[in-house]
Amino acid sequence: MNNAEFIIESAVRAGIDVCFANPGTTEMPLVNALDTVSGMRSVLGFFEGVCTGAADGYARMAEKPAMTLLHLGPGFGNGIANLHNARRAKSPMFNVVGEHASWHLPYDPLLAMDIEALAGSVSAWHRTVKAPETVGRDTKEAIARAFSGKIATLIAPNDFQTATFAGAADRDPAGQGDHASGIDSALIEQAAAMLSSGKRSALILGGQALSVKGLMTAARIRAKIGCDLFYDTFPARLEQGAGLPDIYRIPYLPEMALETLKPYEAVLCLGTRAPVAFFGYTGLPSVFISERQDRLVIDRGDSAIIDALSRIADALDAPLDVDAAILSALKRPEIPSGKLDGAKACTVLAALQPANAVVVEEAITNSLAYHAQINGCPRFTLLSLTGGSIGQGPASATGAAIACPDRPVIDFQADGSAMYTIQALWTQARERLNVTTLICSNRSYDILKLEMARAGILTPGPNAGRMTDLSGINWVKLGEAQGVSSVSVHTCEEMAHALETALAEDGPHLIELVL
Amino acid sequence: MNNAEFIIESAVRAGIDVCFANPGTTEMPLVNALDTVSGMRSVLGFFEGVCTGAADGYARMAEKPAMTLLHLGPGFGNGIANLHNARRAKSPMFNVVGEHASWHLPYDPLLAMDIEALAGSVSAWHRTVKAPETVGRDTKEAIARAFSGKIATLIAPNDFQTATFAGAADRDPAGQGDHASGIDSALIEQAAAMLSSGKRSALILGGQALSVKGLMTAARIRAKIGCDLFYDTFPARLEQGAGLPDIYRIPYLPEMALETLKPYEAVLCLGTRAPVAFFGYTGLPSVFISERQDRLVIDRGDSAIIDALSRIADALDAPLDVDAAILSALKRPEIPSGKLDGAKACTVLAALQPANAVVVEEAITNSLAYHAQINGCPRFTLLSLTGGSIGQGPASATGAAIACPDRPVIDFQADGSAMYTIQALWTQARERLNVTTLICSNRSYDILKLEMARAGILTPGPNAGRMTDLSGINWVKLGEAQGVSSVSVHTCEEMAHALETALAEDGPHLIELVL
Repeated sequence: MNNAEFIIESAVRAGIDVCFANPGTTEMPLVNALDTVSGMRSVLGFFEGVCTGAADGYARMAEKPAMTLLHLGPGFGNGIANLHNARRAKSPMFNVVGEHASWHLPYDPLLAMDIEALAGSVSAWHRTVKAPETVGRDTKEAIARAFSGKIATLIAPNDFQTATFAGAADRDPAGQGDHASGIDSALIEQAAAMLSSGKRSALILGGQALSVKGLMTAARIRAKIGCDLFYDTFPARLEQGAGLPDIYRIPYLPEMALETLKPYEAVLCLGTRAPVAFFGYTGLPSVFISERQDRLVIDRGDSAIIDALSRIADALDAPLDVDAAILSALKRPEIPSGKLDGAKACTVLAALQPANAVVVEEAITNSLAYHAQINGCPRFTLLSLTGGSIGQGPASATGAAIACPDRPVIDFQADGSAMYTIQALWTQARERLNVTTLICSNRSYDILKLEMARAGILTPGPNAGRMTDLSGINWVKLGEAQGVSSVSVHTCEEMAHALETALAEDGPHLIELVL
Repeated sequence: MNNAEFIIESAVRAGIDVCFANPGTTEMPLVNALDTVSGMRSVLGFFEGVCTGAADGYARMAEKPAMTLLHLGPGFGNGIANLHNARRAKSPMFNVVGEHASWHLPYDPLLAMDIEALAGSVSAWHRTVKAPETVGRDTKEAIARAFSGKIATLIAPNDFQTATFAGAADRDPAGQGDHASGIDSALIEQAAAMLSSGKRSALILGGQALSVKGLMTAARIRAKIGCDLFYDTFPARLEQGAGLPDIYRIPYLPEMALETLKPYEAVLCLGTRAPVAFFGYTGLPSVFISERQDRLVIDRGDSAIIDALSRIADALDAPLDVDAAILSALKRPEIPSGKLDGAKACTVLAALQPANAVVVEEAITNSLAYHAQINGCPRFTLLSLTGGSIGQGPASATGAAIACPDRPVIDFQADGSAMYTIQALWTQARERLNVTTLICSNRSYDILKLEMARAGILTPGPNAGRMTDLSGINWVKLGEAQGVSSVSVHTCEEMAHALETALAEDGPHLIELVL
């Protein structure tokens, strides 16, 4: 067995069975090992941002890391934007990057660059293998870090990949990451004391607190003290819908967020930090909870947060069984009629999205009305743009569909953002994935127009105006060019029909919502 | 005047008049300044790799830097692959990246990341502005570095952009970069001595030695001593065609490169280093010039190399006027007939490319036959994939067309590589650029198949096989989707007709060459 085979075998043994790959020459031994070692499905992305975004979406749904295989520094560079989103989502990932042969690198071949600087910008762990003998140890550490919920990046020189594996001891299974320590009882008591003070309270939930178990435990607390529940503006993964407690999004715009949170005298953040403005605006605070509000933050990304919720509920003597009356009833909006706009598109989607759907939401300015209508939908999972780096949707939806082949995946997608990883459609077609992409086609960076107005630029000049004008894309052709069944709709009725058709058929679909 | 306006004004005063932009909220004051300050053309790229690749192509043709405007770390990350190519091309560039407001950044907003780590990986100079008062000095330094032929990246916090400019002294024009020092006479004498030794000699030329002046001076040396001329495998810019001396490409494959250079007892590298293998292959050397060959390297990227050539020619007492007999005569291949393949596509292109064309060559495996046929073409300019990071062609062609609106630009382009910056077509359509993209559609990463075979993988397994299969793209729809007139051709005759039509019409065209 050579070291490349050891790397793949170790990943498979640890439970990693999908590799989102875009390899080149320096990764050839690893590519070969994808066949000589069994158990790894390799999925080609036609741009590295597709691979890293897919690995992120996969990890959010499969709750375990995928592997990526990327080519040298430029390949890793192309993956950075979605690695940034994955880092903010706290998604685990095992990246393997080839490096030039160790004896060739000193000659600075054209593709050589500082891979470590790039890897360090988004990885919790990264290392270049320094000798063939350390591949075993390095791989084991990388995989262990990935299974502890982090992004781990292993950089493997080509000649070390082909060297014979020599590290038998490293074949023992890697430890499955850091053992999560429990949350300090003092913090639990403090939280319970704050919530039982009689003050008007809010829980802001993130991470695993947004799992079914987390939410149902939060519901116990709500049942006992009547607090309101909120989720991060951009949750990595939110379970949502009828049978779960009503929960509201922290608004994106700082004025709205501040207004939303203002009534609460006590705010407990669980699995997330105190909410921070997406951008800084002069005269507005960076953090949406003020000094005059009681605040307690227990920001843990792992399942310890569910245990903490449970202990807080117990400390409050909250009922174990929650009365159905405080849970969302199944209640879907009516399908509106007439010409589509952003708000109506949200309503059509909320009216029709099937039970068990995975909705990837990167609709930016067009999703505002969506979040207000989903508490009563049949149960589904929402993934969002965690790091603000656009182009997460098409890639992430691809990975989610690989992780959950039996669930319909809907990518509710802004047009401008979609273009950054539009090559994901090709992978969706090639893998016959059940992804329906809804393109909110307003032919504009509307978020920039909004931010321009906020910055006082009310009548943009010709240069500034052209920076937000995205007209000129034919979405039907762009989808069909990559093998995705595509259609363009102008009315609510057309959208409803197209969405039902897409969901009823196998394979990927694209629906341009002309707004 | 605020600092954002100062940055734009400084760039304009220095002679930078094009900005390839993909801005976001943190760059809003700069976007506004693109209108309040006159003299800067802003060109929107629908993905940052398009902007940086376009700035590279622009710089190669305009011989001066363009500005780019990129959004935070993820935006810069998306631009890294083509910045890497630009760095290898020694293209100057002035990148400006917004950063969160200085008072907001400590709260680690979602889009925050280590921009400096990314910028440092590809920039010769980078700095985050630390106080509003230093914007003047920092901008001046950045622009001076750009004009010295380097990539300079200025990271400007949003609040410092809006602050009033306070640095009158910095309004003096920036020095136009490092003053190039001459090349030591001892080196010139050494070169002349080597070339006059009677040994069979080769000149390997790169950088400005591949300009018309450089090549005509090299022709003097050739006229005197009968040496052969070669160019880097991946030249940033090569002037080429009838009336210039015959010059040959260093082959990509190491066996062929070694074989090509083996006959020479003395090798002089001017404006480039001794040629290094693109990848390291076991049993083959990293450098293509062996110990038993005399070797002298004068690797300067600037115009000093032309002066050095001239001094060497003078030292050799080479004639000032070169006999036309040693220059390439106009001699174009016949247009072949029948079903297209890679070699025939090269011949059709060499037969038809118009005088004064700019040919961007990223055809990878399909361009081998092209380089052997271009010495006799009407004079043109060749740009190539300097850093090996694929996706340079569509972007670089876009920038070249902005720099040279009166010259036809032809992007001779591999299909796999094109997908990495396919969004460049949209900018070409929007700006009505005269770019003709020839897609070598073999539906395969052929270079990977080649490298697999070289790595001993002669019968790839199913996973490895799928890593090189790129079928499933409809290029006509992909071009039309972005507003580019597109056609697919299967024969030499069809290609010839389509190419002539595309060149006769204004605006961008795409021709899929089905190979």
